[in-house]
Amino acid sequence: MADRVQEILSWYSSDNAGTRTNIARLLRQGKLAGTGKLVILPVDQGFEHGPARSFASNPGGYSPLYHFQLAIDAGCNAYAAPLGFLEAGASQYAGQIPLILKLNNHDTLHDEKDPLPSVTGSVKDALRLGCSAVGFTIYPGSSHCQTMYEQLRAIAEEAKASGLAVVVWSYPRGSVLSKEGETAIDVVAYAAQIAAQLGAHVIKVKLPTAHLEQAAAKKVYESAKIQIATLAERVKHVVQSSFDGRRIVIFSGGAKSEDQHVFEEARAIRDGGGFGSIIGRNSFQRPKADALKFLHTIMGIYSGEMQ
Amino acid sequence: MADRVQEILSWYSSDNAGTRTNIARLLRQGKLAGTGKLVILPVDQGFEHGPARSFASNPGGYSPLYHFQLAIDAGCNAYAAPLGFLEAGASQYAGQIPLILKLNNHDTLHDEKDPLPSVTGSVKDALRLGCSAVGFTIYPGSSHCQTMYEQLRAIAEEAKASGLAVVVWSYPRGSVLSKEGETAIDVVAYAAQIAAQLGAHVIKVKLPTAHLEQAAAKKVYESAKIQIATLAERVKHVVQSSFDGRRIVIFSGGAKSEDQHVFEEARAIRDGGGFGSIIGRNSFQRPKADALKFLHTIMGIYSGEMQ
Amino acid sequence: MADRVQEILSWYSSDNAGTRTNIARLLRQGKLAGTGKLVILPVDQGFEHGPARSFASNPGGYSPLYHFQLAIDAGCNAYAAPLGFLEAGASQYAGQIPLILKLNNHDTLHDEKDPLPSVTGSVKDALRLGCSAVGFTIYPGSSHCQTMYEQLRAIAEEAKASGLAVVVWSYPRGSVLSKEGETAIDVVAYAAQIAAQLGAHVIKVKLPTAHLEQAAAKKVYESAKIQIATLAERVKHVVQSSFDGRRIVIFSGGAKSEDQHVFEEARAIRDGGGFGSIIGRNSFQRPKADALKFLHTIMGIYSGEMQ
Amino acid sequence: MADRVQEILSWYSSDNAGTRTNIARLLRQGKLAGTGKLVILPVDQGFEHGPARSFASNPGGYSPLYHFQLAIDAGCNAYAAPLGFLEAGASQYAGQIPLILKLNNHDTLHDEKDPLPSVTGSVKDALRLGCSAVGFTIYPGSSHCQTMYEQLRAIAEEAKASGLAVVVWSYPRGSVLSKEGETAIDVVAYAAQIAAQLGAHVIKVKLPTAHLEQAAAKKVYESAKIQIATLAERVKHVVQSSFDGRRIVIFSGGAKSEDQHVFEEARAIRDGGGFGSIIGRNSFQRPKADALKFLHTIMGIYSGEMQ
Amino acid sequence: MADRVQEILSWYSSDNAGTRTNIARLLRQGKLAGTGKLVILPVDQGFEHGPARSFASNPGGYSPLYHFQLAIDAGCNAYAAPLGFLEAGASQYAGQIPLILKLNNHDTLHDEKDPLPSVTGSVKDALRLGCSAVGFTIYPGSSHCQTMYEQLRAIAEEAKASGLAVVVWSYPRGSVLSKEGETAIDVVAYAAQIAAQLGAHVIKVKLPTAHLEQAAAKKVYESAKIQIATLAERVKHVVQSSFDGRRIVIFSGGAKSEDQHVFEEARAIRDGGGFGSIIGRNSFQRPKADALKFLHTIMGIYSGEMQ
Repeated sequence: MADRVQEILSWYSSDNAGTRTNIARLLRQGKLAGTGKLVILPVDQGFEHGPARSFASNPGGYSPLYHFQLAIDAGCNAYAAPLGFLEAGASQYAGQIPLILKLNNHDTLHDEKDPLPSVTGSVKDALRLGCSAVGFTIYPGSSHCQTMYEQLRAIAEEAKASGLAVVVWSYPRGSVLSKEGETAIDVVAYAAQIAAQLGAHVIKVKLPTAHLEQAAAKKVYESAKIQIATLAERVKHVVQSSFDGRRIVIFSGGAKSEDQHVFEEARAIRDGGGFGSIIGRNSFQRPKADALKFLHTIMGIYSGEMQ
Repeated sequence: MADRVQEILSWYSSDNAGTRTNIARLLRQGKLAGTGKLVILPVDQGFEHGPARSFASNPGGYSPLYHFQLAIDAGCNAYAAPLGFLEAGASQYAGQIPLILKLNNHDTLHDEKDPLPSVTGSVKDALRLGCSAVGFTIYPGSSHCQTMYEQLRAIAEEAKASGLAVVVWSYPRGSVLSKEGETAIDVVAYAAQIAAQLGAHVIKVKLPTAHLEQAAAKKVYESAKIQIATLAERVKHVVQSSFDGRRIVIFSGGAKSEDQHVFEEARAIRDGGGFGSIIGRNSFQRPKADALKFLHTIMGIYSGEMQ
Repeated sequence: MADRVQEILSWYSSDNAGTRTNIARLLRQGKLAGTGKLVILPVDQGFEHGPARSFASNPGGYSPLYHFQLAIDAGCNAYAAPLGFLEAGASQYAGQIPLILKLNNHDTLHDEKDPLPSVTGSVKDALRLGCSAVGFTIYPGSSHCQTMYEQLRAIAEEAKASGLAVVVWSYPRGSVLSKEGETAIDVVAYAAQIAAQLGAHVIKVKLPTAHLEQAAAKKVYESAKIQIATLAERVKHVVQSSFDGRRIVIFSGGAKSEDQHVFEEARAIRDGGGFGSIIGRNSFQRPKADALKFLHTIMGIYSGEMQ
Repeated sequence: MADRVQEILSWYSSDNAGTRTNIARLLRQGKLAGTGKLVILPVDQGFEHGPARSFASNPGGYSPLYHFQLAIDAGCNAYAAPLGFLEAGASQYAGQIPLILKLNNHDTLHDEKDPLPSVTGSVKDALRLGCSAVGFTIYPGSSHCQTMYEQLRAIAEEAKASGLAVVVWSYPRGSVLSKEGETAIDVVAYAAQIAAQLGAHVIKVKLPTAHLEQAAAKKVYESAKIQIATLAERVKHVVQSSFDGRRIVIFSGGAKSEDQHVFEEARAIRDGGGFGSIIGRNSFQRPKADALKFLHTIMGIYSGEMQ
Repeated sequence: MADRVQEILSWYSSDNAGTRTNIARLLRQGKLAGTGKLVILPVDQGFEHGPARSFASNPGGYSPLYHFQLAIDAGCNAYAAPLGFLEAGASQYAGQIPLILKLNNHDTLHDEKDPLPSVTGSVKDALRLGCSAVGFTIYPGSSHCQTMYEQLRAIAEEAKASGLAVVVWSYPRGSVLSKEGETAIDVVAYAAQIAAQLGAHVIKVKLPTAHLEQAAAKKVYESAKIQIATLAERVKHVVQSSFDGRRIVIFSGGAKSEDQHVFEEARAIRDGGGFGSIIGRNSFQRPKADALKFLHTIMGIYSGEMQ
């Protein structure tokens, strides 16, 4: 199985040894170590939605320590959070799990159609906290996309020079897109391509629907007969759109939903050649024992131990 | 009681020794030294409201020296003020009380619905004046919140690298919030969470009401049956929303009001697990003898010497 | 009289020796040397109003050398001007009189209700030209006040680190203020406080009228019975509003006017505890012999040699 | 033929040896080595138009490696692409073909009449990836042209100091231009001049039409009888407008079109004294064997081996 | 005659030896060497108006080398151009004529009532190209004047520290000025004063008309009986407005016009005490032999060899 990690690392041959080491750390951690698959625990909902909406359903989650322990106990590949949450546990949990510092965040006390998150941490913060990677969200389609792309450019340059990996959340949003368009297959594939071209090592997108948003793209999807009927086909197309599978692409679980539904999605991600999931609300908003069982099922699907 | 200081410091284990030393200085000063509770004297009203509105009722306060002496004589944990006020006494009172340099301020000659204070001091200023901490105000909900968060990010990074503590005033305000919403429990708890996620060591918020402002939050507060009927319960919820009590959260006294009312509030803060108060106008806008007596009563409530 | 200089310097004990030396240079120069009083010659009208409006009435003033010589011959404490005017004579007059480099300026070819001057010089310029201080204008009340305060913050930090003194012109202006409000006593006192809080060593304001502009302030002035009926009382209140007299506050002469009127004002400044005047158009827009006599009379009023 | 390269290098005598070396590398590579002509493969459509619109017609192109190999196999002078595409192969193909890192890009999820691309890479990125040149797009006529020119200024200064060449895509666009005006001969010649004045070593423009857009220019073209009837004449005028032929000017092929049409254009470029083509969609959107044949024909036209 | 150069240099006594050396180089070059008069060849029309409008009437001018040679052959004091034009010949013509790098430029593909040119070169560029001075255009009256003044401030500081001279083109323009007002005597004199106060060593303005634009100025011009009836009187007033003649002020020739008219203007400049001309379109838009004769006549007028 270690060969798969070596194969993946070969796609990042222009990166320095430090960055490749940190990509390897993500891939060699937890229950999926060495499989080339990843399940990452992200907890930025406290900032994005507020504390009660995020943690009241499972109050243990108010504590920053809870999530470090959950990620470790579940055998996740990494734990991703904003500055405050990582500062509150990074020293205590030093070396136990790769950390991803989310460098920009957005709250819903002030919201906008064309969002622009605030930069809330730095590459230097990531280094002093012992992180393996920085995370950054872009909203392709937002009228502020230029600002985000340029912030990411500067951060990625510094992160790569510092031997860190770069994880990009690429979520189409903005007044020019319909609500349905935010997860349209053409738009999601485009968002993955943009993240890849901006130099992301790991790309995170939402699971796409079969909707086609942009007229010019729709024509091509139809004439070239691109297969997008099933979720697995769509995952495959997104992976292809991410440098023909030579970039790690993972998918978000989204809001809390039925377990069977999430498992279905995991199977489609696996069958389409996706690299895994980033699962927040579906894991930390339920009692810990349930969360562990739930995450192990997903990991089993990815590792092939389960169907 | 020293154990309580050690316990609190353990929450900041990712910080360097310099910052932890300065947090300890705040906690080991004055009448509440070692209790884990704080009463801080802030005097930025000269900038925020103008000199006459701030000091005419007790003209001694026109002098910057007055406030240093008041904070020392009352046994406060620290004295917080803008650049000019600290420059005017920092050398003379060197080493007598921890200082907090307020790094942004806002005046009411030009006011706006979505406020953006001016940055009026620097971390370097704080260092040359012998301060233990920098203070910074954010207005979550303001259309300028991104600018403030990013200013704070840069300041906090520099302050932490310089061994200073970071105190954040988090006051929801802006055209999207109702007047009542500025102190709604969901909004105040959210504001505390944002400050914590931005990396604040000490968080200052207003005492919340039982009002619920945001529809999405209201649903959760009701379904999860979060207790917010009494002020002590609401304080407890704010403390929980600040990393489950692993961050120092103190509450502001607001405009001058009845002594008994302020004492009631202090008891609620204490009973809810709050860490203390920041008391400006209620202390420096009355004769010094009265102010000392008033502050000692509050400190007695926190220390348990008084009911 | 040297004791008065020592006393004044004691208010600036947080400043480094370099800055204190330069404050002392301002106070130990010219006819008022050692008295703690200052008369400064400012010549920025060429930039602010254009050359003909400034110098046609006394054409010698077209030459930058004229003003150096006038300030020296009259025994002023210092000469203040923009970059070009100082560059044109600083080397020739090196060491003969303390210089203040005005670091921002505004012209009237393009004017606005909410003014924002251009930064036209730097602290480094002040150092290479041998200046003792930098000067900076803020317009509290302008919608651009935040920009000005932050420019001043950066300049003051660099100036203080470089051993220079900081002189702030604080002129309330902006679309939220009535014309009368620009010189209202509450507004001028507030403007002086803001300059002091921003870290000014020397504050320059306009002479205030008895008008009260802001409703919230008016209530306090009336309830606290602040004395503002005479000009001397108003000067006293402004001095009190500048850290209870622990900052040097000087007053501007404004447009050219009757000599007796200016002398009356100087007496009120003296009687109210003001530290002196900054006199431009009333001095350089008349023949030199007249100007010297006029300035000597004002200096005599401040020194007590004249009534 | 090497003499032609020396002659071209003599036009860049103010550049340092590093930059001249890299210009020489572009001119001494591939089938056109030494002829002074260039055919460059650019692949930024993934970013600009999305992955499916760019690569679905020839799915090999989803892979970043495909384009390196295509450019090498076809004997192109250089391969130009955004950061992600170059990072994905620069190490593997190190030293096999000169690389041009496109430093700004624009996507069509959010589009505007007056476009402003995002800066997506840096000179430092180009250096660490072993590139010979940086590429930058300006849109003269856009209301954001000032921002682009100033970004280019800073990038070109750093690139030249670092020994890299600077390639500028100069595409008139913006709300003040008619659609027809974007390729009008007066506008294209002006765009070439602007790129040259901004310090470009290599200028890329679109093939111009005989339309005249600007009234003031039209008058001159008519009175001076500038020959613009044939495409070769217009190419000649654009070359003259680029410092009388002392700058390398190449022309873009545009959207996919009839082969014979592209060959006609190449002959006109050659006959007008143009330096070659930059051919993207017409090469990578067809099967590789066809692409090689197609590109060889064009190179044959430029080298004189074909008519 | 060398004494005149020494006299002029004495006005710049605050500048370092490097800058004074470069001012001397401008004054000791060409046919007017040592006279204290200057004729400078500026060629930025390619950028400002486009190539055909600039060079079609004398096609030799498409080549950057043409203008170096023209300036040398005509015995001009200096040649001024944007980055690209200087880069294309600076090495070849090294040391043959002082060069002035125009650091900002503006094109007419996108034009605005309140113009803001783009910064297109740097002081470092000027140094690596062996220039004696940098040139910068300000548009007093433009709503963007603050930006331009602050760009110039930073450039001038760096240029002076680097031993270069600073030449400022000061052209009133903007929506607040009437067309006639752009060359009104009060406005031009004000523009010259602003350039001088901003620290220009050499000021370039347009020849003024007798029109008075600003009401407040008009009153002064009339009451003080400032002589502005003849062009020579107006030149004299502009020179006086430039620090009483202690700054080098030269005048632009403007669009191509009748030779006799230009000679008349040169005589008025000479008689009014102006320092010379900057002559672009009237020289390079005619055949070279004519241009040399034309420029020699103007130089003869300035040197006194001709009437």
